[in-house]
Amino acid sequence: MNDPTLRSAIRERIRLAFDPDVLESLMRELTEILPEHMRGVQASQHNVLNWTDPVLNTERARASLQSNGQPVDREGLRSAFAHLIRRMLRNGQNLHDPRYLGHQVPASIPIAALFDAVGSVTNQVMAIYEMGPWATAVERAMVQELGQCIGWTDGAFDGFVTHGGSLANLTALLTARNVALENVWEHGMSGCRQPPVMVIHAEAHYAISRAAAVLGIGRRHMIKAALDDRRRMDPQQLDATLTALKQAEHPIVAVAANACATPIGAFDPLESIADVCQKHQVWLHVDAAHGGAALLSARHRHLVAGIDRADSLVWDAHKMLFMPALCAFVFYRSRAHRFEAFRQDAPYLFDPAAPGLAEYDSGMKTVECTKRAATFGLWGCWSLFGRQLFSDLVDLTFDLTGLLFHKLEQASDFQPLHEPECNILAFRHLPPQLRQASAEQIGRFQLEVRRRVIQSGEFYIVQTQADGHGALRVTIINPLTTEQQLDQLMATLRHHGRELLAESPDLI
Amino acid sequence: MNDPTLRSAIRERIRLAFDPDVLESLMRELTEILPEHMRGVQASQHNVLNWTDPVLNTERARASLQSNGQPVDREGLRSAFAHLIRRMLRNGQNLHDPRYLGHQVPASIPIAALFDAVGSVTNQVMAIYEMGPWATAVERAMVQELGQCIGWTDGAFDGFVTHGGSLANLTALLTARNVALENVWEHGMSGCRQPPVMVIHAEAHYAISRAAAVLGIGRRHMIKAALDDRRRMDPQQLDATLTALKQAEHPIVAVAANACATPIGAFDPLESIADVCQKHQVWLHVDAAHGGAALLSARHRHLVAGIDRADSLVWDAHKMLFMPALCAFVFYRSRAHRFEAFRQDAPYLFDPAAPGLAEYDSGMKTVECTKRAATFGLWGCWSLFGRQLFSDLVDLTFDLTGLLFHKLEQASDFQPLHEPECNILAFRHLPPQLRQASAEQIGRFQLEVRRRVIQSGEFYIVQTQADGHGALRVTIINPLTTEQQLDQLMATLRHHGRELLAESPDLI
Repeated sequence: MNDPTLRSAIRERIRLAFDPDVLESLMRELTEILPEHMRGVQASQHNVLNWTDPVLNTERARASLQSNGQPVDREGLRSAFAHLIRRMLRNGQNLHDPRYLGHQVPASIPIAALFDAVGSVTNQVMAIYEMGPWATAVERAMVQELGQCIGWTDGAFDGFVTHGGSLANLTALLTARNVALENVWEHGMSGCRQPPVMVIHAEAHYAISRAAAVLGIGRRHMIKAALDDRRRMDPQQLDATLTALKQAEHPIVAVAANACATPIGAFDPLESIADVCQKHQVWLHVDAAHGGAALLSARHRHLVAGIDRADSLVWDAHKMLFMPALCAFVFYRSRAHRFEAFRQDAPYLFDPAAPGLAEYDSGMKTVECTKRAATFGLWGCWSLFGRQLFSDLVDLTFDLTGLLFHKLEQASDFQPLHEPECNILAFRHLPPQLRQASAEQIGRFQLEVRRRVIQSGEFYIVQTQADGHGALRVTIINPLTTEQQLDQLMATLRHHGRELLAESPDLI
Repeated sequence: MNDPTLRSAIRERIRLAFDPDVLESLMRELTEILPEHMRGVQASQHNVLNWTDPVLNTERARASLQSNGQPVDREGLRSAFAHLIRRMLRNGQNLHDPRYLGHQVPASIPIAALFDAVGSVTNQVMAIYEMGPWATAVERAMVQELGQCIGWTDGAFDGFVTHGGSLANLTALLTARNVALENVWEHGMSGCRQPPVMVIHAEAHYAISRAAAVLGIGRRHMIKAALDDRRRMDPQQLDATLTALKQAEHPIVAVAANACATPIGAFDPLESIADVCQKHQVWLHVDAAHGGAALLSARHRHLVAGIDRADSLVWDAHKMLFMPALCAFVFYRSRAHRFEAFRQDAPYLFDPAAPGLAEYDSGMKTVECTKRAATFGLWGCWSLFGRQLFSDLVDLTFDLTGLLFHKLEQASDFQPLHEPECNILAFRHLPPQLRQASAEQIGRFQLEVRRRVIQSGEFYIVQTQADGHGALRVTIINPLTTEQQLDQLMATLRHHGRELLAESPDLI
């Protein structure tokens, strides 16, 4: 160690990578490429999904790693950079194409990413306040703002941001576990005489049942709450379930309700569920990753009535607040629970010389120690456009989904599987040839048609199951989608359906 | 629902937020601001840390949310955007200032963030292959490349990226738990007769002991392995510990070693530890979040000899690969373990019409369902500069830390607390007035001096504990730091030390 010659040779080699002039030159290059790409995508000039076999794709991605570049000058670097960026854009999923009607991942507000990029270029992080004072301030400001939208009073509640809805649910349910089972943090679950249980929506996102297994509760101790005919948790049956569990002396960690559940976007009746939980003194957790945004819409707020009574809730900004991934909020109704998930200290992080700051140290509340500043995009867009933009996005996408439902209902060869409550809609395409087919055959047809459609790049939609068989599903989560694309989607499904039946008549 | 008038009014209102011309205009604005800021930071023209009281900072961040902006035209939007960006930059932590010598968070390679920004503007995500084909390919290519650096053969191992070292450790230890306790996923931990235990480095990052408590093992079932005089895990004593635990019939979930431990950067002797684990047939997990990068340096690779024998390991690209947060790799030596962390399916995600693709569905392996494309920056920089850049960054920062050690050793009023193995160094400032002070007083002095220094904005360093008392600690994780800043750091500590002793003589 301690070698000045080595140091100066290295400094010469790494110069380009840290040079602000190079940064500027590459930002100019990016400004030439990216908006132009976005124009083409919004005008449907490319495929929605650029399908390539994963093995081939991985080989290609790896090949560039082995070029052992070492560009000698700025001009060489600039052209190599442009080449790599164009490859990324040519091979991705184009969520801003109005024909993208896919998973609960939005055509995000593009300029949100510019705020995030400032955080990323300068590497703003959180963990302790002093490492990210402004990142912390921005996150806390958003927590306060959204908490007020929930209907809570400043100072009474608390919350934070984490990387994704699954991690958010895991953290909130960890808190519920630690509160319900007093010594579990210290003693572990092996000390429990009677297995603790968690009661969940029967169609909850897999993150919820996973969380129970991660936390040591075990999948078989996830009790599925009965659903009504609209696939919502039934409060009366929940009451009976909780009564029975208490009689059997099972500690109940939490009831996990949904706003909304993933398959068809069903919103649980939260007021009544909150009544039942209150009666039994059980922690109410609400996974509002998708539907929390209804709080911002005067038209749709009724869907989440009662959400303010949840002990914990999850709300993803990277879903219906149209932020790029990942920015998931966890809220606790009572501020007293904010440090319950983790019950430790980290002496090299938390500073005895300024103990009051621990309140602002995100690492005390989140799984992440070093945490990427994930709220700049939301803060920036909210500051620029106000709450109205987010309300508009909810209203528009929910409304469009109603329009699609109407169109499917009118068509003899389509069958919507439910009336949409939000912007999620499951349906099936039923061409005349399928009239005599079995439910299994019809289900298989949906999946095969979908795969053809998405690999063609013409539309991106997803699949689901209904009554145990395959179905189609869209989330209208792109405000650029218009009535025209909805008509075109039906035509495209018909086209690929015909081709499929012609090529594989044995399918039915 | 279904209201064409509403839809067109909303489309008019949201137009600016999704307009590619606006994106272009704001990218141009950002190109004016950000590289210029980076120049100033690299030239130490600003404070390192911009210190403001957290309550005040949060109030300020919230005030802009309530302006209810609604900019009417592009020009208004552009100036409002510039205003917000400048506020972000004015209030953050300047990691690229050569006087930033802080936590294990690097002065990241700025252009890495441009690759990430492409992912963020276009919202590339993973979960299932079809949602992020190129993001998946890039991540898998990096997993293969880094796996080869570990010394493994393509096809034999597996890995993935997740959001942060803590989550990475949690996921790897979850796998270890599920493998060690066969029915735990289904039955939960409450079915274990004898409490399972985990054996950890006594100074492991808090993420490790947290993980045990999260997973239902319980903090008191974390057995701290004995350390040698250089604060490394002692293999002989580990052997004795494992023997005793087996005799007491405790199931052993894993041994968790470090490369390196956080407080002083001590690297555990992995070869000998692997021998002991092999003898007892216990899962070896290595937290190489920081030190994994030594694999890339011919000079320092010896520090992690034996790491290829780990069953699981964690390696953060957002530490010593100088990536912006967050990009943490988890590796399993045996590919057979890649689906052990989570043992479920999600029917609406994983497509029976293309079952072979599940191998490429990241959601099968990670806590995240929707996962931000987190590897573009690393892939881009590795493609542009090759492995050499990363090797250089390790060599340079390790070397500089040796230089600082030498300087501290030479000075009568500084005391390094260990010889550095990497780029982490703990020390104390001991001005003559402290010669008669107690260990407790000396410790308090370090913390008070540090707080003055960081709040002054002159340097950013962190604190730690040694022998139960406060100490100073630097991580030289900025390749722009030179010998000049190391001298200046010592002068700054002396200056603030003198001031502190003058103002608070009762401190000693």
